[in-house]
Amino acid sequence: MSNLIRKIGVLTSGGDAPGMNAAIRAIVRTCSYHDVMCVGVFRGFQGLVEGDFEVLGPRDVNYIINKGGTILKTARSAAFRTEEGRKTAYENLKNAQIDALIVIGGDGSFTGAMLLSKEFDIPVMGIPGTIDNDINGTSHTIGFDTALNTVVDAVDKIRDTASSHKRLFFVEVMGRDAGHIALNAGIGAGAEEIIIPEENLGLERLLESLKKSKLSGKSSSIVIVAEGEKLGKNVFELGEYVEEHLPEYEVRVSVLGHMQRGGAPSCFDRVLASRLSVKAVETLLEGGKNFMVGLINDQVALTPLENIVKGHTAVDAELLRVSDIITI
Amino acid sequence: MSNLIRKIGVLTSGGDAPGMNAAIRAIVRTCSYHDVMCVGVFRGFQGLVEGDFEVLGPRDVNYIINKGGTILKTARSAAFRTEEGRKTAYENLKNAQIDALIVIGGDGSFTGAMLLSKEFDIPVMGIPGTIDNDINGTSHTIGFDTALNTVVDAVDKIRDTASSHKRLFFVEVMGRDAGHIALNAGIGAGAEEIIIPEENLGLERLLESLKKSKLSGKSSSIVIVAEGEKLGKNVFELGEYVEEHLPEYEVRVSVLGHMQRGGAPSCFDRVLASRLSVKAVETLLEGGKNFMVGLINDQVALTPLENIVKGHTAVDAELLRVSDIITI
Amino acid sequence: MSNLIRKIGVLTSGGDAPGMNAAIRAIVRTCSYHDVMCVGVFRGFQGLVEGDFEVLGPRDVNYIINKGGTILKTARSAAFRTEEGRKTAYENLKNAQIDALIVIGGDGSFTGAMLLSKEFDIPVMGIPGTIDNDINGTSHTIGFDTALNTVVDAVDKIRDTASSHKRLFFVEVMGRDAGHIALNAGIGAGAEEIIIPEENLGLERLLESLKKSKLSGKSSSIVIVAEGEKLGKNVFELGEYVEEHLPEYEVRVSVLGHMQRGGAPSCFDRVLASRLSVKAVETLLEGGKNFMVGLINDQVALTPLENIVKGHTAVDAELLRVSDIITI
Amino acid sequence: MSNLIRKIGVLTSGGDAPGMNAAIRAIVRTCSYHDVMCVGVFRGFQGLVEGDFEVLGPRDVNYIINKGGTILKTARSAAFRTEEGRKTAYENLKNAQIDALIVIGGDGSFTGAMLLSKEFDIPVMGIPGTIDNDINGTSHTIGFDTALNTVVDAVDKIRDTASSHKRLFFVEVMGRDAGHIALNAGIGAGAEEIIIPEENLGLERLLESLKKSKLSGKSSSIVIVAEGEKLGKNVFELGEYVEEHLPEYEVRVSVLGHMQRGGAPSCFDRVLASRLSVKAVETLLEGGKNFMVGLINDQVALTPLENIVKGHTAVDAELLRVSDIITI
Repeated sequence: MSNLIRKIGVLTSGGDAPGMNAAIRAIVRTCSYHDVMCVGVFRGFQGLVEGDFEVLGPRDVNYIINKGGTILKTARSAAFRTEEGRKTAYENLKNAQIDALIVIGGDGSFTGAMLLSKEFDIPVMGIPGTIDNDINGTSHTIGFDTALNTVVDAVDKIRDTASSHKRLFFVEVMGRDAGHIALNAGIGAGAEEIIIPEENLGLERLLESLKKSKLSGKSSSIVIVAEGEKLGKNVFELGEYVEEHLPEYEVRVSVLGHMQRGGAPSCFDRVLASRLSVKAVETLLEGGKNFMVGLINDQVALTPLENIVKGHTAVDAELLRVSDIITI
Repeated sequence: MSNLIRKIGVLTSGGDAPGMNAAIRAIVRTCSYHDVMCVGVFRGFQGLVEGDFEVLGPRDVNYIINKGGTILKTARSAAFRTEEGRKTAYENLKNAQIDALIVIGGDGSFTGAMLLSKEFDIPVMGIPGTIDNDINGTSHTIGFDTALNTVVDAVDKIRDTASSHKRLFFVEVMGRDAGHIALNAGIGAGAEEIIIPEENLGLERLLESLKKSKLSGKSSSIVIVAEGEKLGKNVFELGEYVEEHLPEYEVRVSVLGHMQRGGAPSCFDRVLASRLSVKAVETLLEGGKNFMVGLINDQVALTPLENIVKGHTAVDAELLRVSDIITI
Repeated sequence: MSNLIRKIGVLTSGGDAPGMNAAIRAIVRTCSYHDVMCVGVFRGFQGLVEGDFEVLGPRDVNYIINKGGTILKTARSAAFRTEEGRKTAYENLKNAQIDALIVIGGDGSFTGAMLLSKEFDIPVMGIPGTIDNDINGTSHTIGFDTALNTVVDAVDKIRDTASSHKRLFFVEVMGRDAGHIALNAGIGAGAEEIIIPEENLGLERLLESLKKSKLSGKSSSIVIVAEGEKLGKNVFELGEYVEEHLPEYEVRVSVLGHMQRGGAPSCFDRVLASRLSVKAVETLLEGGKNFMVGLINDQVALTPLENIVKGHTAVDAELLRVSDIITI
Repeated sequence: MSNLIRKIGVLTSGGDAPGMNAAIRAIVRTCSYHDVMCVGVFRGFQGLVEGDFEVLGPRDVNYIINKGGTILKTARSAAFRTEEGRKTAYENLKNAQIDALIVIGGDGSFTGAMLLSKEFDIPVMGIPGTIDNDINGTSHTIGFDTALNTVVDAVDKIRDTASSHKRLFFVEVMGRDAGHIALNAGIGAGAEEIIIPEENLGLERLLESLKKSKLSGKSSSIVIVAEGEKLGKNVFELGEYVEEHLPEYEVRVSVLGHMQRGGAPSCFDRVLASRLSVKAVETLLEGGKNFMVGLINDQVALTPLENIVKGHTAVDAELLRVSDIITI
């Protein structure tokens, strides 16, 4: 029933992630390729409720593939959480003759999209865009790879000064519920220890590990700490705790913060965003609906949106082991 | 028969690739983790023939995870191509009590390793390190992801000036036999056209595509050309040909060259190198031999070295299609 | 007589340079600050002849400070070189009630601006924007610092592979008439030899220097070559010549090309562009005219446009000496 | 009396800064050029007290020009603050036949060097290495330019997410006593407001400025805050204060931290470090002593160490004004 889809809306929702613009660009152009109109919805679901729409043609998305952030903006929407709000959203879509909606975001955004789809029978598709990589149905979310490079680049800089001063640094990276950024960037940055929510390292083991590290002849050390770690202390308290118990260390703390969300997307994220977006549009045109498009075993694959849950992968045991071994 | 392996040699061979140092570091430390000695062999197989060895401990590989190139150097070896040369190599290994050898490089390097293994029954393991991604048995070779980011970053810069002057740029990227860099970086850089050895675009279609691109309102364009393209013209001749036939375009040519081989490795390449290296050492210690360690479906996997061939993947049809669609 | 200037036009001309957008942004906002209108002229003097104008307000220049290239585009204009063309340009300015013109570009662009000013008595101001740093009246042109960082970053990558293979690289950088990029980036990149138009090194001395370098124990070397060098051989011929005469070297050549013109401007170039632009607008508003705004002894300073000539500084003897000493 | 100096010691002291390695490299090679020995002193003055010395030849400083941090390390030294400690230091120098000492660091390090020189009549030279740019006698300290680029690059990333979410960010940058980083990087990053120790903006004016900014149509904003600002609130409290008083803003805070000290030095810092270092060595060889080498009006210049004071330049009024105007 591809002939039923003549106009597709697209919005970005939740925290922004590098590569969202590459996805928007690919959606707009895939629509154009198939002679379907594309409408950008601004500020996520809030823009849906407010009817903040703009038709997008192929030239409107020139020169955005390498831009961080999202040209469609993103926002929280209290209104959309109400049935009334969603009804208004639907009416706006109907008035604008938008036949289907693509939502770029995380699991929370997909929940919103599914509600809309169920209540008003409008086909939706989800594209995973979040730096946290915390959704099932895809090995990589758009933005994850870029965030890893941003973290690794920042920690490379911190190590310059750490090794010059023979200091121990605690570096907090994003990841409230999932340690994927911490684990991968920790390995990539050559961190001596990685503290993630999924694994309860324990304060004792941390101290032991750091003691051992010092004895092994390391003169400086980096510990990567995921935002959502479960040691019961924030990263500053952790630093103080260690300095207290291991006076041989001079400790410093760095919280990388929101720079992890921005920057020019990596090639990986641009290609990923392009591939998923082509598939999302074409799935709609072929009559498919209510899937998330993801990457599984390096291939573009569909997973029903209702099966998407947060925190998919148990943290990767192999990666944890690799991390333990190579920081000897 | 892990007890038979007490000392492992490691060398880098062929063109260098970012992430080779991360692999060396992980090999050295995995050896140390398992109380096995590690010996670095300098300048590839030539160093094997010359006995250019150095014992490497965990602290010798501090601060190299983020360095491009290879601390072990790499070189061509005419001597190793002779039986006599390989015999000398083997004797050097024996004298140094090296029980097994890990070779980081491309398919040519693996051929050399297999010869040595067959002739002198020494266990070898291969780790794929080359920016070209042109080996089967792994979805990604070490260095490929970094090279893509280097290309995309350079083309982002070129596009700044291309769009300011409304010019058409032909940008040559590495890849003598395979278009993987051109195809992926071309999509990532938003190239209007991608010319690769695997697909014979034809000069006519190139001209048509560029004409169409101009008509669609694009004021500047980038064409990514793989080194090994088969249009019968080098990139400078291509540029002249197009300028002659499409006088509406002002053409410039840029050959990115060897900078594609260097630079700090991306997080992806550092993690990949670490994972493959841990597995390579542990496979030897568990009695395995003559495998290449690669990434298949996001998992570390072994492929017999004798099954490794160049130019594995037919160029990805899905990627070609994505490229066609999103450059509309 | 600031009350006479109510509308200021701005254009970018000649080769684009990183930081031109930062200059445009600062000009637009300084106009707004002083309640003066600002009009962007597209495609340099050609846009002046064609009346390709657009009023620019402070919000039109949001988010461009970090973008390479120029949002106003740049182009050559045969028409403007004729008296008739300039007359049309002037009439367009008059019709649009533009009282003064700011030209961002190099010495050629300033010559055009002065002609217009003389023939039609319209106040003009020049802002030096070119990566070549080849104008007197300013220690730094906008874009020079960024280009240096781009070159140094690329050569850092090349050195990774050069040192892994023990190779000698000839790297050509921009600078047809002036060796400022080559000299500064050569020192910054740790080049063994720097070949610039201003100094005739001679092929003999080049060979000797490289021989000495090899003897001193250097295993890899970088030679930076300015585009406009005067050795009578292009960079590829140079490479061949050296390989022929010094067979102990394995030579490679890399031409960095147009990527040197693009990229996000450095902080230095953004601040420089902002400072010069504020001064250019305010000079016009205070009744000044026909100056170039530059940086002299770290202070913003005015030089009459008629005194601006190309190739200002004899190449810096101190820098040449520093280069000789630290490459020992 | 150049014949009296046959061996020169060099140390880095205080906070490390990108470009220190470029300085060490240039000092070692300038010594070699003049047939003088060079001795590296590890861990600053502490290494002087402990006799932690190592002779450095030209090849020992290969490949460090582009590395952040300092290969000589740096540390605090309580011992050197005592007369006895300095006596030991002097004796170590004497025993090692070191005739003169070059200290790379900030004003505190120079004070130490002068004490040594006065008490034991050993010639010293200072080279300004600190990211803070807070010393008189030089327009730029080594590391300042690199730190500015690091900050601007990070804020570019933050702005991506700020503008996607229409948020207000407070970004804290280094600079306890001086606002040079904040002021320059603030202009370069296009910050809406810059809060520095030298200028008491006042909370009222901050609120007014942000209100005005919102009214002018800006949807996102960045405020750069120097570490040492004098508003009586830390950056987190500032954020809360503004969110409380301007509920139309959604506020986030980011503290850039120690990454500002590291990273590959910019071309500017590498050239600066090379120039100052050549002059430092040659001044000693010509019989000069107890100067700091700096850059004044773009020329290398000497200032007696006893005239060097912290916090040299009143913050630049012109820059403050430029900042005010271009953020309209």
